[in-house]
Amino acid sequence: MTENALRRSDVELFDAADPLAPFRDRFVVADPAVVYLDGNSLGRLPRTTADRLAVVLRDEWGGALVEGWERWIDLPTRVGDLLGAAVLGAAPGQVLVCDSTTVNLYKLVDAALHLLADRRTVVAHRGDFPTDRYVLDGLAGRAGVAIRWVDAVDDVVGALDRDVALVVLSHVDYRTGKRADLAGITAAAHAVGALVLWDLSHAAGAISVGLDTHGVDLAVGCTYKYLNAGPGAPAYLYVSTALQPHLRSPIQGWFGAADQFTMGPAYEPAADIRRFLTGTPNVLGLYAVEEGASLVAEAGVGPIQAKAAALTDLAVVLADAWLEPLGFTVLSPRDARARGAHVSLCHPEAARISVALRRLAKVVPDFRPPDVVRLGFSPLTTRFVDVWDGIDRLRTLVASGAHNGVDLSGQRVR
Amino acid sequence: MTENALRRSDVELFDAADPLAPFRDRFVVADPAVVYLDGNSLGRLPRTTADRLAVVLRDEWGGALVEGWERWIDLPTRVGDLLGAAVLGAAPGQVLVCDSTTVNLYKLVDAALHLLADRRTVVAHRGDFPTDRYVLDGLAGRAGVAIRWVDAVDDVVGALDRDVALVVLSHVDYRTGKRADLAGITAAAHAVGALVLWDLSHAAGAISVGLDTHGVDLAVGCTYKYLNAGPGAPAYLYVSTALQPHLRSPIQGWFGAADQFTMGPAYEPAADIRRFLTGTPNVLGLYAVEEGASLVAEAGVGPIQAKAAALTDLAVVLADAWLEPLGFTVLSPRDARARGAHVSLCHPEAARISVALRRLAKVVPDFRPPDVVRLGFSPLTTRFVDVWDGIDRLRTLVASGAHNGVDLSGQRVR
Repeated sequence: MTENALRRSDVELFDAADPLAPFRDRFVVADPAVVYLDGNSLGRLPRTTADRLAVVLRDEWGGALVEGWERWIDLPTRVGDLLGAAVLGAAPGQVLVCDSTTVNLYKLVDAALHLLADRRTVVAHRGDFPTDRYVLDGLAGRAGVAIRWVDAVDDVVGALDRDVALVVLSHVDYRTGKRADLAGITAAAHAVGALVLWDLSHAAGAISVGLDTHGVDLAVGCTYKYLNAGPGAPAYLYVSTALQPHLRSPIQGWFGAADQFTMGPAYEPAADIRRFLTGTPNVLGLYAVEEGASLVAEAGVGPIQAKAAALTDLAVVLADAWLEPLGFTVLSPRDARARGAHVSLCHPEAARISVALRRLAKVVPDFRPPDVVRLGFSPLTTRFVDVWDGIDRLRTLVASGAHNGVDLSGQRVR
Repeated sequence: MTENALRRSDVELFDAADPLAPFRDRFVVADPAVVYLDGNSLGRLPRTTADRLAVVLRDEWGGALVEGWERWIDLPTRVGDLLGAAVLGAAPGQVLVCDSTTVNLYKLVDAALHLLADRRTVVAHRGDFPTDRYVLDGLAGRAGVAIRWVDAVDDVVGALDRDVALVVLSHVDYRTGKRADLAGITAAAHAVGALVLWDLSHAAGAISVGLDTHGVDLAVGCTYKYLNAGPGAPAYLYVSTALQPHLRSPIQGWFGAADQFTMGPAYEPAADIRRFLTGTPNVLGLYAVEEGASLVAEAGVGPIQAKAAALTDLAVVLADAWLEPLGFTVLSPRDARARGAHVSLCHPEAARISVALRRLAKVVPDFRPPDVVRLGFSPLTTRFVDVWDGIDRLRTLVASGAHNGVDLSGQRVR
């Protein structure tokens, strides 16, 4: 493709034809001049969320006070069921919204290692997100279990044998945007008697997941990316109904007890998914998750996935045409079915370029060490012209060399 | 004392002379007819909190989007330092606001058991709050460590020996309101080489704590009681500066890593208190803690403790005069220096009475099984006339026998 083959006016037609286009107005866009391509790090604020939280503060905390617990107590399961139905493809009773992704990972990895304590190996991806690797590393070390690190997700199936207790993997890779074969890897793990824990942080709300359909055992993920629940909103965990009776949380909190308000002498885990609750749930955050997940539910994961494919296809086409000559390489898969909703570009000056884009060109990407500029295209809020404008400004910036003037010393590069 | 010795008009004079009286107007009081005596379960909403969160939503999440992390990233330590200075008596760098009390307990108990792994006993109170007992029980079981349960906090010192690694105790007992001798027990534990972890949930914001002064090792607590940070707001943890290098969190999350954004291959804990962070912090909740803690800072822990003593003294006097003849017993200590800010009353019909008080008398207490009606007097928001009115309505209710008509079947009694 050349620059002449596709014009901005063509891309405007994509937006005009986009069935999800009206959703952008459901979110706060404080500065329309900014091209925000970091919704995969922090999604935008839904307009309803601020109103909803104001009402919760006034009427539920301020007004009902402690009686508010009559409705709050079930939020982790109620919002979990919504997320399960709307986003994850999970029947009710298998998803909790609680804690952080890190804490949820910890609980489920620990529980799985105890269930299959006779197996002495776990399989994980060397390039996975830090918290996934760190949590696993800590627990494996404690349990005396070896981690079989693979360099690529495509190597996971070959690394499986009957000593493997657990595979921990991200469905969509945070760095490359590559989508792992969730169905195939899950089936292969089951064939050797292993469990799989999927981190859905970069997948949920961007692509179809289908946890029940693919017989997934365990999953976790955050809600502040494509689910637009805000900074530090509670994360979620999924445990299949069949596994629930066999797994115990290492963190024996009172919210996970069978009869929480009996306050009896011994901890007995709840019979259902609530056994993975810990302490008092984050009420405001749960309502924010409900608002964000409701928008995904309304749009539908199918149309969202289709738009993610189209947005990232456009990004790849433009990157090939405009950025490859400037020293960029497209790191993400070229087949949309093998990607999530972000596209990663390698460039030796990625750190400087990321900073310069924000400062000089009003484009917000993020940077992932050592050499990746990551562009996220949140299907509910990103327009096709945003893809065009973002990449157009990126090429103009790099062609001008303006990024070379950026001083990175003493600053946290994102 | 007889009824005639103290009149409501006398109690009004207490309010008129109360230096903290103006603070009540800093909180939302939705229905002035309700006597709210459950601020020790969920504190009231500060007026500034709703405004602050609305601005954070609009300007920081909605406006700054991912750039908001420039200010959010330090919230757990910044708000921790505020809490340390204003509420806990802790110098900077020792308090984090993060996770729930349950998760914080888990992290610190686990870390302590690993540090003193050659000792095989922990000491705890059989009557302590469930999550404290359950978390400890789970971790002790895993580590093969015995729990030496004591029936009363006064028995703790006698239960110490050189096999004890850790004592876990609430500073103020959730059921009885009894205040443990934090200084004495800490010193006695240190004398045998043990550590002490204090749960401050029912103490912080009600009485003076003085963690540094008393050489406390470890502490945790929630923020939604006397700190008025709202349902499910993040909890806190304290680790003394001297201990920090020797303790490791079992939950190796990316926010606790030495250089979080390097995303390197191996987990290296942060050198300071941040090593006890896990995943992405709850930003809205952290701002709510900041608002609540700021009010405590403004009032001062000294005046707060003095008012807690006066409010609970009045409650004990009235309970003796009016309630003892109706079959109630004051379970809480009679010396204010040995109490927190709540007073517990035993009665065989406590469950029915608690429900009837809410439904029929517009008084909100709570119920703790099997026989306790708990009355909490949050010093910043409870007036002396609230103590009078609450206990007056309680005696009228019980004298009338109206509580006997309450059907408890199928409902969650609080």
